[in-house]
Amino acid sequence: MAEEKRWVLMVTAQTPTNIAVIKYWGKRDENLILPINDSISVTLDPAHLCTTTTVAVSPSFHQDRMWLNGKEIPLSGGRYQNCLREIRARACDFEDKEKGIKISKKDWEKLHLHIASYNNFPTAAGLASSAAGFACLVFSLGKLMNVKENNSQLSAIARQGSGSACRSLFGGFVKWVMGKDENGSDSLAVQLVDEKHWDELVIIIAVVSSRQKETSSTSGMRDTVETSPLIQHRAKEIVPKRVLQMEEAIKNRDFAMFAHLTCTDSNQFHAVCLDTSPPIFYMNDTSHRIISCVEKWNRSEATPQVAYTFDAGPNAVMIARNRKAATLLLQKLLFYFPPQSDTDLSSYVIGDNSILEDAGIKDLKDIEALPPPPEIKDSVAPAKNKGDVSYFICTRPGRGPVVITDESRALLNPETGLPKQ
Amino acid sequence: MAEEKRWVLMVTAQTPTNIAVIKYWGKRDENLILPINDSISVTLDPAHLCTTTTVAVSPSFHQDRMWLNGKEIPLSGGRYQNCLREIRARACDFEDKEKGIKISKKDWEKLHLHIASYNNFPTAAGLASSAAGFACLVFSLGKLMNVKENNSQLSAIARQGSGSACRSLFGGFVKWVMGKDENGSDSLAVQLVDEKHWDELVIIIAVVSSRQKETSSTSGMRDTVETSPLIQHRAKEIVPKRVLQMEEAIKNRDFAMFAHLTCTDSNQFHAVCLDTSPPIFYMNDTSHRIISCVEKWNRSEATPQVAYTFDAGPNAVMIARNRKAATLLLQKLLFYFPPQSDTDLSSYVIGDNSILEDAGIKDLKDIEALPPPPEIKDSVAPAKNKGDVSYFICTRPGRGPVVITDESRALLNPETGLPKQ
Repeated sequence: MAEEKRWVLMVTAQTPTNIAVIKYWGKRDENLILPINDSISVTLDPAHLCTTTTVAVSPSFHQDRMWLNGKEIPLSGGRYQNCLREIRARACDFEDKEKGIKISKKDWEKLHLHIASYNNFPTAAGLASSAAGFACLVFSLGKLMNVKENNSQLSAIARQGSGSACRSLFGGFVKWVMGKDENGSDSLAVQLVDEKHWDELVIIIAVVSSRQKETSSTSGMRDTVETSPLIQHRAKEIVPKRVLQMEEAIKNRDFAMFAHLTCTDSNQFHAVCLDTSPPIFYMNDTSHRIISCVEKWNRSEATPQVAYTFDAGPNAVMIARNRKAATLLLQKLLFYFPPQSDTDLSSYVIGDNSILEDAGIKDLKDIEALPPPPEIKDSVAPAKNKGDVSYFICTRPGRGPVVITDESRALLNPETGLPKQ
Repeated sequence: MAEEKRWVLMVTAQTPTNIAVIKYWGKRDENLILPINDSISVTLDPAHLCTTTTVAVSPSFHQDRMWLNGKEIPLSGGRYQNCLREIRARACDFEDKEKGIKISKKDWEKLHLHIASYNNFPTAAGLASSAAGFACLVFSLGKLMNVKENNSQLSAIARQGSGSACRSLFGGFVKWVMGKDENGSDSLAVQLVDEKHWDELVIIIAVVSSRQKETSSTSGMRDTVETSPLIQHRAKEIVPKRVLQMEEAIKNRDFAMFAHLTCTDSNQFHAVCLDTSPPIFYMNDTSHRIISCVEKWNRSEATPQVAYTFDAGPNAVMIARNRKAATLLLQKLLFYFPPQSDTDLSSYVIGDNSILEDAGIKDLKDIEALPPPPEIKDSVAPAKNKGDVSYFICTRPGRGPVVITDESRALLNPETGLPKQ
């Protein structure tokens, strides 16, 4: 190790979040986070939903420290400790002759880390921030510590921070193979196809307002495994077949099959939550209304236009077959869920809001003028639900983790190793 | 048959409604209404929820006619026709020498019927009015036509009108045995215990306001059987065990086991609805809040105080272990779901509203003064949900069908055979 105590070595990386289209629900090992079934996800474009993490090491650091969205948080939790231990065990020799830094494999055990992480979306919105967060932590530490393992192998470490984090190590469509080993070494993510394979897909997320305090997914899935008489049948008999069908649907860009599997698997996940004792409700009346809107439209068309899926919360993630379908979907959603009159349109539809232009919507008056969706055959005017959706995010399938070389985007000061702001 | 054309022969009967505690969901024969699993119900006190039906026969009638709640309705539907055909096939000779009426077995085929039926509760409230209705139709016609079959045998006829109607032929706790015969002859109801066996139980029904148009149970269960990958596992593997456990719980008045089975089976029924494609949602946010209220309370006590169950709609049926538990339950429910300020208390809590007195509630001010349930440990004041419940019905387990001999309570005019009003 260099004698000079002043150097700070840093890596910054950006990692996407992901949404499962075949759901992970239930662990066979709580500590190692080993699931009871395979799952498949689509990675979301990090331009709209991602975590950026800067990790730094310096002989001047006295302890491991972490800041999340600017606020220091404890690293003492088992999940952080598991990730840090596993990644340190794989650290390799590192040398930067120019800066005069030399770190041997053994030194990493003694050196302390500073970690700063930032989500470009509200952490509390229930949008899998822990998936992107742990994936980014492990990915950036892997780069910093010169770890030789590939992203699949790294995913098995990220998995120990948050199960679904393992799927954020890749772009496009990703499968988390449940594995068989007791030590979890084969429970890792593999990329099925990259984000270019099916690039017509457009994703719209409805962030749904909620009064309810939700059950955490950790305790929720534990309760389901312990009390639901249906969960084992789902995990052993139903999911394995769906995973094979989903892989085929993705390979063949078969949207009808993709939508069918995505919707039914989301619904079955929520069914086993309801079959839990006490029952767990993640979807609310707004979620139900969004499902009805999509189902009615899909059934009025020759083939499905949109798939929906809901995680452990009321937010809807809708995957449209193409940009035209997404434009029509956004019109329907804005008809049913218009913004409050004091809302700025640019904060109500965020992300790739060029879809607003396609939909011919420039201001709130254009939303008021939207006609009822033609598939609604009720004689009474359908109810509008102002305020039930907080905002919409327009996005698409996206790439996996990347290192950010632009030092100005680092979250830690390269001199002090402390958060920039 | 008597030559005199002027006589009208009438029978009036009253039949209770019932609520399943092990649910019926899914038919193996749509026409005969044969279920895919056994079910168990509790009969509700007809003083608060029942159907009264008067059936009349006269040589002066020109066709079969029926009036429901004072309005004539067509009898041409297959379900009515099936019930009328089956009961006529079992008609026996009848003679009333005093009135000079003599009807032979064969005459019943030619004689026409007038039927008037009245529910003492709102038909649209989603409180199984068809169960009480078809049970009362078959029971009263059986009496009129001097049918010798017992109530279990009659239940197999009522079943062909509405599946759950078969369970309304008895008071107390009733089991609908699914049977094996293709013709449905062994798919009938048997009484497990009468209403005196477990008479501490008190039932409170929350009639929940709803904006949604609900899926009919007929089409809902058809869709579930056709599309849910979980329903067969439920029907074949889970329900048979639960039925045995429920019979034991009822026999032993084991409220803890009874409540556990009732709640989990209701939740599983709604889980398979959610597992249907497209998904079916019968419970809404208000239903979920009621469940949370009961679950929190039950878990704060050494043993469960209240069981809940929901049919094909958002209404909660809550069964309290005794009157004291029902009084506490009503206080909690009124705290969370107070009436609108212009509501009359006597129309907000109906049925056996002496429980209101036990709860110390004389007017709306007493409701406003109710303290938050002690099991709520949130630091913020719990939300109140005015208007989310339309009204509460307080009742108890009750008796089976009875003939009403007081002619003044007949719904048809004894001279004309037409509705009284």
